[in-house]
Amino acid sequence: MLQLIGFDADDTLWENEHLYQLAEKKFLVLLSHYQEEAFISRALYDMEMRNINVYGYGIKSFALSMVETALLISDNTVTGLEIQQILAFIREMLEAEVQIIDCVEDILGTLNHSYDLMLITKGDALEQSRKIDRSGLRPYFKYVEIVHDKTQAIYEELLEKLEIPPENFVMVGNSLRSDIHPVAALGGQAIYIPHHFTWAHENDIPGDLKGFRYHQAGEIQEVPDMLRKIDQDLKD
Amino acid sequence: MLQLIGFDADDTLWENEHLYQLAEKKFLVLLSHYQEEAFISRALYDMEMRNINVYGYGIKSFALSMVETALLISDNTVTGLEIQQILAFIREMLEAEVQIIDCVEDILGTLNHSYDLMLITKGDALEQSRKIDRSGLRPYFKYVEIVHDKTQAIYEELLEKLEIPPENFVMVGNSLRSDIHPVAALGGQAIYIPHHFTWAHENDIPGDLKGFRYHQAGEIQEVPDMLRKIDQDLKD
Repeated sequence: MLQLIGFDADDTLWENEHLYQLAEKKFLVLLSHYQEEAFISRALYDMEMRNINVYGYGIKSFALSMVETALLISDNTVTGLEIQQILAFIREMLEAEVQIIDCVEDILGTLNHSYDLMLITKGDALEQSRKIDRSGLRPYFKYVEIVHDKTQAIYEELLEKLEIPPENFVMVGNSLRSDIHPVAALGGQAIYIPHHFTWAHENDIPGDLKGFRYHQAGEIQEVPDMLRKIDQDLKD
Repeated sequence: MLQLIGFDADDTLWENEHLYQLAEKKFLVLLSHYQEEAFISRALYDMEMRNINVYGYGIKSFALSMVETALLISDNTVTGLEIQQILAFIREMLEAEVQIIDCVEDILGTLNHSYDLMLITKGDALEQSRKIDRSGLRPYFKYVEIVHDKTQAIYEELLEKLEIPPENFVMVGNSLRSDIHPVAALGGQAIYIPHHFTWAHENDIPGDLKGFRYHQAGEIQEVPDMLRKIDQDLKD
């Protein structure tokens, strides 16, 4: 039977990606006198991909990738004032309020009577722990894990530590790459809730994680019913 | 009796602070045509202190503080090429090899026959986990914890999770602020091993953590004997 339900946080429990998209939009406008916006946007994405292994995820990594992209696309002629603007966009992101997604608190309050809940989020530990505190959602979770990446190996390690077999675990999230495929590949179950803002990287699935089955929900309100069915199927 | 020995990592198990000092030195030389080096160094430290609550610890935070300091002390006239240089200093830091401090491996290999060992390090999760992997020291530790800060509350939470009373815990490290005083204030024991490179911030102790007793060692080789004595005192 189901023992543990994992929830992604960014864009599953609260809005997050819109902050990145808003900052990127301002960045493109700021630098549009050097190059076309579409060109800069592509250069920024490529820079982030090159930097992920060195910088990791999170707002500070995004900041450094923006500064490096500004240097690249301006042939190092970007001005100090423009760099200062970029850092101001970042400051706004870091200080943004946490906007909880509709009904999340009710759903968590219902589910935690029936299951142990775990929040699993990747990225910068300080950024993520600040958002968890600001969200007020910590009391609903038995476990809170901030990891530097959400790979199959990292899910495996978390479940082993808690001595929970993957088949008794369900992961809920909006990222095919981070929440759904690695858990499905491990033999767990996953409920995918697409979000209207999703970073392209999160839909880029490594080949060896493809071909596993998962569930899909239109919104988080559907999750309790889906869990009941999954639990029933496990018991049958 | 002693149950758990915690080890700080940066500048306790391996060299770290020298990378920051080297990058700062290059930064000061690069910008010395704007202001005197001592002035820039002070401005950088002040910037880091202002940014710690927002950016946290680690190399990426240091990078952003360096860029902001360059803007500040040049009155926003710093050039793109100079910013590019600063990012190159950062890249070198991120890619630096891990230099294990003398005898660390022998000492850990001896101690882990008698005690459970925990590595506790603060900072960026990706940076720290990469250093732990590169160090090859992970097998000596029963627990590895990467936290965003090392406060009394965070030590308390870690020990509660493991159900270990503070008096059965000893922390070993080179930072009075992060390793020694918070553990001593909690009722645990602490062994301070000063390091010849220490960031000024790590010796800046909050007032409410002062006045607790701790042990001091000249080098890590003295730790096993000190632990035997602490353990004997606990048993008596």
